[in-house]
Amino acid sequence: MSPDHVSTACLIALDWGTSSLRAWLLDASGHVLDERATADGIMQIADGDFEAVFARVAGDWLAAHGALPALACGMIGSRGGWVEAPYVTTPADPADLASRLTPVAVAGTTLHIVPGVNQAADAARLPDVMRGEESQVHGALAADPGLAEHAWLVLPGTHCKWVEIEQGRIVGFKTFMTGELFAVLRAHSILGRPAQDTTPSDDPAAFALGATTARDTGVAGGFSALFSARSRLLAGELQPASSLSYLSGLLIGEELRSVFAGRDDRPPLCLIGDETLCARYRTALAHFDIDDTTHQPDAARYGLMRIARAADLIQGTPS
Amino acid sequence: MSPDHVSTACLIALDWGTSSLRAWLLDASGHVLDERATADGIMQIADGDFEAVFARVAGDWLAAHGALPALACGMIGSRGGWVEAPYVTTPADPADLASRLTPVAVAGTTLHIVPGVNQAADAARLPDVMRGEESQVHGALAADPGLAEHAWLVLPGTHCKWVEIEQGRIVGFKTFMTGELFAVLRAHSILGRPAQDTTPSDDPAAFALGATTARDTGVAGGFSALFSARSRLLAGELQPASSLSYLSGLLIGEELRSVFAGRDDRPPLCLIGDETLCARYRTALAHFDIDDTTHQPDAARYGLMRIARAADLIQGTPS
Repeated sequence: MSPDHVSTACLIALDWGTSSLRAWLLDASGHVLDERATADGIMQIADGDFEAVFARVAGDWLAAHGALPALACGMIGSRGGWVEAPYVTTPADPADLASRLTPVAVAGTTLHIVPGVNQAADAARLPDVMRGEESQVHGALAADPGLAEHAWLVLPGTHCKWVEIEQGRIVGFKTFMTGELFAVLRAHSILGRPAQDTTPSDDPAAFALGATTARDTGVAGGFSALFSARSRLLAGELQPASSLSYLSGLLIGEELRSVFAGRDDRPPLCLIGDETLCARYRTALAHFDIDDTTHQPDAARYGLMRIARAADLIQGTPS
Repeated sequence: MSPDHVSTACLIALDWGTSSLRAWLLDASGHVLDERATADGIMQIADGDFEAVFARVAGDWLAAHGALPALACGMIGSRGGWVEAPYVTTPADPADLASRLTPVAVAGTTLHIVPGVNQAADAARLPDVMRGEESQVHGALAADPGLAEHAWLVLPGTHCKWVEIEQGRIVGFKTFMTGELFAVLRAHSILGRPAQDTTPSDDPAAFALGATTARDTGVAGGFSALFSARSRLLAGELQPASSLSYLSGLLIGEELRSVFAGRDDRPPLCLIGDETLCARYRTALAHFDIDDTTHQPDAARYGLMRIARAADLIQGTPS
């Protein structure tokens, strides 16, 4: 794109989750012409008037550029969202997702909602679901095509997803409730109380102790070590201000212990999302002798662009 | 004791925990002459006036029988309790506990507080602590001396304890936060929400599915299956009203998976405490092919009697 080239808006892309909404105005190459982030997650829209939120966020883009197509991923397509967008069952590539969009007429255009992905139970797997991560995953694969053949993509968060990719398809995945567990244990359990009387500090040594404690539980597993976040305090091995760092290390360490238990090999690992949280995972992974992970920042808009293109929503060719 | 024998009160025994207080007036044989249960757990005594609570609960016993010795176990001896009673480190038998009582002068007599037991960290064990369970354990051993040589005593609850006994001594133990995890996940996590719109039912099939799901995670461990309490619901495999039964089975099942992982043998198992909760554990144990557990109802007062006798607090001989 040359400096004197004026890009033409082609797509409104939305990552519309439980607690937040991000929106981008994109050209045919996926360049960001404008963007917005609001707190209008589906849990925050008490009256269910998603149309009003959409108009507030994207109305001026539509007024300026005409009836642009819009594409949204995330919990907006769940039962508690705008319209339920049925799941696509694994394996799932961008074409599978693009062929199963759920359209909603709104503000003179069509908002297409990306389906979530589900996994049926079999002998090796529990049933599982994702909404939004499928778009981030395919965005990361667009940014780093070397991962497409075989990789594990890891999306830390409230519900951390470990997604296995083969030949550019999501072939299986597992959800760990690590982020939510940390939040509820911090706010509501005996493990969170000591830190409430302090200014909790980010203590790398306590985080490392938590991660290695979980790792070293072996087959017993990290659930069995949860109470150590209290007993180490009573034993003087841990300070109240560091107790949340320990708990965080223990929970992330247990997630890693579980994933790698009984495995001799693994494909390349890529962490996706918020850099601060991904850095915590990288630190914990180092305690499992893993230091070759790559990182993709939140890749939702790249994935939405890919899916939009696969669905023929985009006019024009990439520059 | 013959019917015409009038028992003489010898001991006021108290099991004084976080959320409740139970008190017994006992004769020299440990027979209950009177008893009381109140909600005066240490968390409920906001002003810290334990003396007033003691006087309210035991004042008329002291008035009627003179300055009886009193013995208390439980969180009353913790930092947040009346007086901190230092821990006795494993191994711990009744004589060890009796030799380390912490006296408090109150209402014209002496209240002796039983020490908790702690376990120092070593290569095989994490640090751990108990307060109150040591008295229940030694009470159960008094009631069933066959367990003294080698056994695992299991005390389900907010913080479930697995206590290993050898030669009548507590030689090691492990705390599982199973009860607290269930409570916080039920009240504060996404896993508890579906049941909030229903009348939760006790569903044995859902409990069994949870327990076997955790069991079958193998080395991955039951943390990795936590999200299945949601995904099975979305997959139509679980009903909202049964979701708490599933979660309960999953958490108790994970506790059992962890305890038995990598083991070929185990000593006799005895469950101690509330029959309803112990029955849940027995049901889950059956899914691990274990059906030879015994049961002791809450045995705190038997243990307090043993410790009181070992400490020479009791005048008179058992009838």
